[in-house]
Amino acid sequence: MSTMTKLPMSELSQRTAFFLSDRTGITVEMLGHSLLSQFENVAFEEITLPYLNTREKAVAVVGQINERASMGQSRPLVFSTFVNPEIRLVLDSANALHLDCFSIFIAPMEIELGIRSSHTVGLSHRVENPIDHRQRIEAIRYTLEHDDGISQKNWRQADITLIGVSRTGKTPTCLYLALQYGIHAANYPLVPEDFDRATLPAQLRNVHSKLFGFTIDPLRLHRMRNERKPDSKYASIKNCQYEVREAEMLMRREGIPYLDATSKSIEELATAVMHEAKLERKIY
Amino acid sequence: MSTMTKLPMSELSQRTAFFLSDRTGITVEMLGHSLLSQFENVAFEEITLPYLNTREKAVAVVGQINERASMGQSRPLVFSTFVNPEIRLVLDSANALHLDCFSIFIAPMEIELGIRSSHTVGLSHRVENPIDHRQRIEAIRYTLEHDDGISQKNWRQADITLIGVSRTGKTPTCLYLALQYGIHAANYPLVPEDFDRATLPAQLRNVHSKLFGFTIDPLRLHRMRNERKPDSKYASIKNCQYEVREAEMLMRREGIPYLDATSKSIEELATAVMHEAKLERKIY
Repeated sequence: MSTMTKLPMSELSQRTAFFLSDRTGITVEMLGHSLLSQFENVAFEEITLPYLNTREKAVAVVGQINERASMGQSRPLVFSTFVNPEIRLVLDSANALHLDCFSIFIAPMEIELGIRSSHTVGLSHRVENPIDHRQRIEAIRYTLEHDDGISQKNWRQADITLIGVSRTGKTPTCLYLALQYGIHAANYPLVPEDFDRATLPAQLRNVHSKLFGFTIDPLRLHRMRNERKPDSKYASIKNCQYEVREAEMLMRREGIPYLDATSKSIEELATAVMHEAKLERKIY
Repeated sequence: MSTMTKLPMSELSQRTAFFLSDRTGITVEMLGHSLLSQFENVAFEEITLPYLNTREKAVAVVGQINERASMGQSRPLVFSTFVNPEIRLVLDSANALHLDCFSIFIAPMEIELGIRSSHTVGLSHRVENPIDHRQRIEAIRYTLEHDDGISQKNWRQADITLIGVSRTGKTPTCLYLALQYGIHAANYPLVPEDFDRATLPAQLRNVHSKLFGFTIDPLRLHRMRNERKPDSKYASIKNCQYEVREAEMLMRREGIPYLDATSKSIEELATAVMHEAKLERKIY
């Protein structure tokens, strides 16, 4: 007897999936993993192989794929993003379903745009531009310095300041915003002293229009805090209920927009903040 | 007269590209942006619209796309990842080249796997599982505590410890490893005292097999340090040459693998570390 709604492992079919690229493989891994998650009754073994930038490496990987194919009952799935068409052709010879993300999209785009792509003419993919790189490093530095309300300086330079009680996901979300979007993201933890005071702390009052709040289900907060500080007053359900209620009251009273962070991934929190606070990404 | 190899802006053709999703839009934005970068002679205006999860929102976006199409000389490109096929169909009516990443790949995958996808039967996309979420939050916490050699405790818990002179990209790379792969990534800055001593500092000696080094071109290091601390001894070209030479000697003597971080993006550094240090991602 099982209360699980999914099939037990023995009834799942098995497949190997390869994510291949002649560069980092980050794009193909993300897209491929998303696509596989649409097939819930298949147990995929996922193997990422980046930097396949020579014919020799590509030939070796074809060997690895064919070995998998002969071991299992069915041939692997291969997702790839090859800038170099020669490498892509080598992989086409593998005993696998090979879906190359670039070639599938580039053809209709070439027709639409009426020009050939750099891909087709053999140019290499552009690298991160130095201005983006600097902006990003600077955003990470700023965000680390303004994590958890640490530095009192330069709060006005923040593109956004996240507020909320401790353990609502502010720090990871700020780091994601800095790394992926180049956003200067500060955060300030609301503590009982903030609730006793009638107004926002001074460093937040000056940046009111850039404040954005996170709230959370008190029971979930209690469980998370209990993992780190078991049986503390800080983690008690009563204190969690109190803090969340007070924090929500404060944000409503001050007219600060906020969202419920319960059960959201870091990506979901970061993209929701970008979207709802109408922030523009600084880097690509 | 121009020394640029690219066409001047006036000779670039202009297009609008939309990245649309009924969820965060992170996958489609990354893939779409990669694809557009293959067309270097077109200046794209890129617009990401996430969370298009109702028919009403989809209809409004079709209006926005059609407005762009009537304004410009050519219709926009639309890249999407819609889990909900009804929303996808609404977007198909827009005056645009619409490439839906999911539908393009799902059909050949369904044939290969011999089953229908959850997508097709209308199930929603899975959310991040709670174990992954916890692993990730914990990895970020660990990484922040062990940034820049701060905490002396628990160095053995690190999956990897990056070493190198200051400003080689250790901190951003560690944060990326924690956020994207759930890796416990510590880092330790090599300073002149480490070069004077004959051995590695104590906390590193115990984790020798998990050390990985970054080196950098001294001139590039000089330029970067000069931006933060102009005209300091720390930033001087002579000191940068000295530190890089000593750090490389130390790493070679100790048999610590290292890579040249000059001009590499954070993604490139992180994936290279994963690959070369043979780390396995802890989360998806």
